[in-house]
Amino acid sequence: MANKRRRAVVLLSGGLDSATALAIARDEGFDCHALSFDYGQRHRVEVQAAQRVAAALGVVAHKIMPLDLGAIGGSALTDLSIAVPEQPTAGIPVTYVPARNTVFLALALGWAEVLAARDIFIGVNALDYSGYPDCRPEFIEAFEQVANLATRAGVDGDACHIRAPLIAMTKAQIIQAGAQRGVDFSMTVSCYQADANGRACAKCDSCRLRAAGFRQAGVADPTPYAVSSSI
Amino acid sequence: MANKRRRAVVLLSGGLDSATALAIARDEGFDCHALSFDYGQRHRVEVQAAQRVAAALGVVAHKIMPLDLGAIGGSALTDLSIAVPEQPTAGIPVTYVPARNTVFLALALGWAEVLAARDIFIGVNALDYSGYPDCRPEFIEAFEQVANLATRAGVDGDACHIRAPLIAMTKAQIIQAGAQRGVDFSMTVSCYQADANGRACAKCDSCRLRAAGFRQAGVADPTPYAVSSSI
Repeated sequence: MANKRRRAVVLLSGGLDSATALAIARDEGFDCHALSFDYGQRHRVEVQAAQRVAAALGVVAHKIMPLDLGAIGGSALTDLSIAVPEQPTAGIPVTYVPARNTVFLALALGWAEVLAARDIFIGVNALDYSGYPDCRPEFIEAFEQVANLATRAGVDGDACHIRAPLIAMTKAQIIQAGAQRGVDFSMTVSCYQADANGRACAKCDSCRLRAAGFRQAGVADPTPYAVSSSI
Repeated sequence: MANKRRRAVVLLSGGLDSATALAIARDEGFDCHALSFDYGQRHRVEVQAAQRVAAALGVVAHKIMPLDLGAIGGSALTDLSIAVPEQPTAGIPVTYVPARNTVFLALALGWAEVLAARDIFIGVNALDYSGYPDCRPEFIEAFEQVANLATRAGVDGDACHIRAPLIAMTKAQIIQAGAQRGVDFSMTVSCYQADANGRACAKCDSCRLRAAGFRQAGVADPTPYAVSSSI
């Protein structure tokens, strides 16, 4: 192959959305460099899920960066003293991790600059989501501005792109897009309080959105649920 | 005092600039929450300097967060195999740490959200600096946009401010501003390759800018230099 393949950094959480975003990046022809964080999240089996997904989708590199977001606190996902809600709540839920996507994108930007990658993929979506402010298109656009001012790219004129291919999709559409690309969703973990074997609680916001997505997509739900759960 | 004091998060590196930014924030009446990073930097005595400065300026809290920017690489400050230049260089120097200020501001934003602080201070300046893209006013403005879209503040309408009070100052003006506020600059470390006792090399870009600043400010330079150095 005469042309050098383009590189992308892909944020990979181990959930269903980022696995699909990675498959999309791969299908666009990028050499994918996956970036995951061990950030003190409750659902650490996510990190193991990210490793399985990265291997299955043939990434060029996978970096798992430790990051002590628990030191900042303020979220049910990093502070074990705050319970994960098992019913829908109004407003921004307590599972929101302050500035999480800003922090993740900032670190992805640093790695992208070192790799001379100009594309950063993030699996956020603004429809079937939990109401987190940093999943909105205007946030992604603003961060792209920052990316182009913060780095050598901004000086050299070779612009960065923050790619959020799922942003306008429903959960069902995301599942269909991933299924078409051969994503094995049984490898992914979405549950905020999965057990040590990766089995989902079937009760949290993330479980409810995921299960409804499979139903609406008409795709069999391969999620392993904890024995006593039903959804 | 009837009024609740406002809180600010202040990025504190242990260098001269951020110490001055902290003194400015304190003099504006903020309860200052200092945030430093142990990010694999060559000049780790910086972190000890940050602790001294935080204590001397009476912060309410000081968090030192470990952050493995060395895993990303790409900078002489975090990669020991890249030498620190001892002569001025053209363009963005190798001491630039990819996306560093974006990462630092993102983490400060997370902490600010938990604290309900709406002001984040950063000691960047765009005049006597090393040519890093993430020290420019347009970068700060773009990050403020991100801050207001990324967080609850953006939803609640109680805006965040990224405060860069030194951005238009010369190094000499920064030194004067700090000296007027009683900052003890002998506590600060600017050198990119200070020895284990915090003594400066007198050769790197940061040492040269700092020494020239003291000369121009007409303030005695209290910097401890390594025995064989002169500047």
